[in-house]
Amino acid sequence: MSDKPDNDVSEVFASDHEQVVYCRDEETGLKAIIAVHNTLLGPGLGGTRFFPYATEQDALKDVLRLSRGMSYKNALAGLDLGGGKAVIIGDPSEIKTEALLRAYGRFVQSLNGRYYTACDVGTYVQDMDVVAKESRFVTGRSMESGGAGDSSVLTAYGVFQGMRASAEYLWGSPSLAGKRVGISGVGKVGRYLIGHLIEDGASIVATDPYEGAIQWLRDNYAQVELVSTTEDLIAADIDVYAPCALGGALDDATVAALTAKIVCGAANNQLAHTGVEKQLEARGILYAPDYLVNSGGVIQVADEIHGFDFERAKRRASGIFDTTMRIYSLASEEGVPPSVAADRLAERRMRDVGRLRGVYLP
Amino acid sequence: MSDKPDNDVSEVFASDHEQVVYCRDEETGLKAIIAVHNTLLGPGLGGTRFFPYATEQDALKDVLRLSRGMSYKNALAGLDLGGGKAVIIGDPSEIKTEALLRAYGRFVQSLNGRYYTACDVGTYVQDMDVVAKESRFVTGRSMESGGAGDSSVLTAYGVFQGMRASAEYLWGSPSLAGKRVGISGVGKVGRYLIGHLIEDGASIVATDPYEGAIQWLRDNYAQVELVSTTEDLIAADIDVYAPCALGGALDDATVAALTAKIVCGAANNQLAHTGVEKQLEARGILYAPDYLVNSGGVIQVADEIHGFDFERAKRRASGIFDTTMRIYSLASEEGVPPSVAADRLAERRMRDVGRLRGVYLP
Repeated sequence: MSDKPDNDVSEVFASDHEQVVYCRDEETGLKAIIAVHNTLLGPGLGGTRFFPYATEQDALKDVLRLSRGMSYKNALAGLDLGGGKAVIIGDPSEIKTEALLRAYGRFVQSLNGRYYTACDVGTYVQDMDVVAKESRFVTGRSMESGGAGDSSVLTAYGVFQGMRASAEYLWGSPSLAGKRVGISGVGKVGRYLIGHLIEDGASIVATDPYEGAIQWLRDNYAQVELVSTTEDLIAADIDVYAPCALGGALDDATVAALTAKIVCGAANNQLAHTGVEKQLEARGILYAPDYLVNSGGVIQVADEIHGFDFERAKRRASGIFDTTMRIYSLASEEGVPPSVAADRLAERRMRDVGRLRGVYLP
Repeated sequence: MSDKPDNDVSEVFASDHEQVVYCRDEETGLKAIIAVHNTLLGPGLGGTRFFPYATEQDALKDVLRLSRGMSYKNALAGLDLGGGKAVIIGDPSEIKTEALLRAYGRFVQSLNGRYYTACDVGTYVQDMDVVAKESRFVTGRSMESGGAGDSSVLTAYGVFQGMRASAEYLWGSPSLAGKRVGISGVGKVGRYLIGHLIEDGASIVATDPYEGAIQWLRDNYAQVELVSTTEDLIAADIDVYAPCALGGALDDATVAALTAKIVCGAANNQLAHTGVEKQLEARGILYAPDYLVNSGGVIQVADEIHGFDFERAKRRASGIFDTTMRIYSLASEEGVPPSVAADRLAERRMRDVGRLRGVYLP
């Protein structure tokens, strides 16, 4: 699309999204936007972000961006799912009620399966249990309700698989034993990741701005070395850097200062701007594409669609090892950074498999 | 809602609409917005307007306004339907193709029956036949396809019933025999209306800016008196004024100049601005609410949902006589103009019947 958007309506139509749905319920205060980016591989799946956006325009921008990301993530994860995402505008601590979540659920249901929802920032498995009272197109429910539960478990497991593949590609062995891994952000995913790494024989240096997280580390993994800031972590002598906190972790200054030879973490949108992927390559740092290695979470919740089975979901998340290897090979063959190779592979699958719908089946 | 919209996104959420759906298909050039205003009485039904809007913002404004109007029209017509409407942005003579209409049909289908479409400006029964190849939630199809065909037939019939009720209320007899009716706009609806009026014994004075329409009148109803402009028509000595062309027919100047004692016509949004309804009342002119008397068309296409039967639809459109009488009584009882009484009756039905969904049925 060549036209520059001159207002919000144009912004929607100038994007490459199939469908954007505004949902409103005055009584409960629900204002939600559901974006279905594309459905070439199946119904759009992605979480519901419940966030006090400064403006409704910000909410629109976010849902357009996030739903597009889910198309790529789901494609590369080998799921039969397209890309979708939703935002609910408002402060969840102020307006989240059973009635609001159920009003939202009725709108999810109204799309009749073109969009499946899940947890995201500001929504939890308990919320999805409530949304699911009004819609059968809900994943990320609690295990008590037959859901996949906390998707951090396989998110961390997938990041670990991506890290093992990176080690295999760079050092000839998938083991992290004896390697020093720096983890920025010890939230739920970071904690599970530390478990996998310690079990594998790695040593860990970590940072987190929240005292609670640091205390949890002291209580559970006293052997983890702590540093005060992410800057300290990056400058430390580490083999692998695992950003597991906010987006934009890899900017010019970070890449210049990194001692690690591998970057592989759970954070979304790690590349702060276009061009960082080339800086990483120039410095000989292997970058495991974020949306590939953190797809264990969506693999976990997607399994719920056919009745959740943890072992089946875990086997599928193990596949992140092979896909990471495949992307490094493709990057090498095509002479592009791994992040570009990942995009190409995702786009290729959407095109090649999506095209098959053209073959009529009676 | 007290907040003034400061951009498009806010405009959607500041409105009283349940759901607004942006639909896009790049290959065919489809850019459509479907608005579901409310579904208290059932799925939203309203036509698809295919129009080269100057801006996409104009398209949004139009579809919000039109879908709201359909909630009121369908409620007052006694239909079990809520309000909806759609716009396709672009010049139909340039971009309307089978593929675009079918892409649109897939989006109509995606709402799974929360929205039923029909013809409107720029779309025709043949187009609805194409849209219906992708969706079962389509009315206004051709009679050859089992559809309701040209809805001008019952639109005109309904206007005639509203006019008869107005005559009964004002003059004590529903007959228009011996009355002089001025018709502005001799399109499809105007032509059928002339047929009913002449059969009833009325005399007609008419105007239309298009030579083709005038020629058709000369060929088919030589007894119809012709005047050059709507201004001439309004100033002529007429008993009933029937605006059957563009919206905004009743402005300050028109109301001041009118000789007619009844205004009853097929045009939409006849009141040019708030307050005109009181000017009409002050001059002793009985105004038959436009969206009530022109609801024969939606009654005709809505019948298609359960398998079209012309006689059944016609019987229902006859009910416009009774509803018009009821509104005049209510207006008199409550000391408000008929247009206000119509809104109240529509809102009352939405509230009273919509509330019943609260009664759980196992």
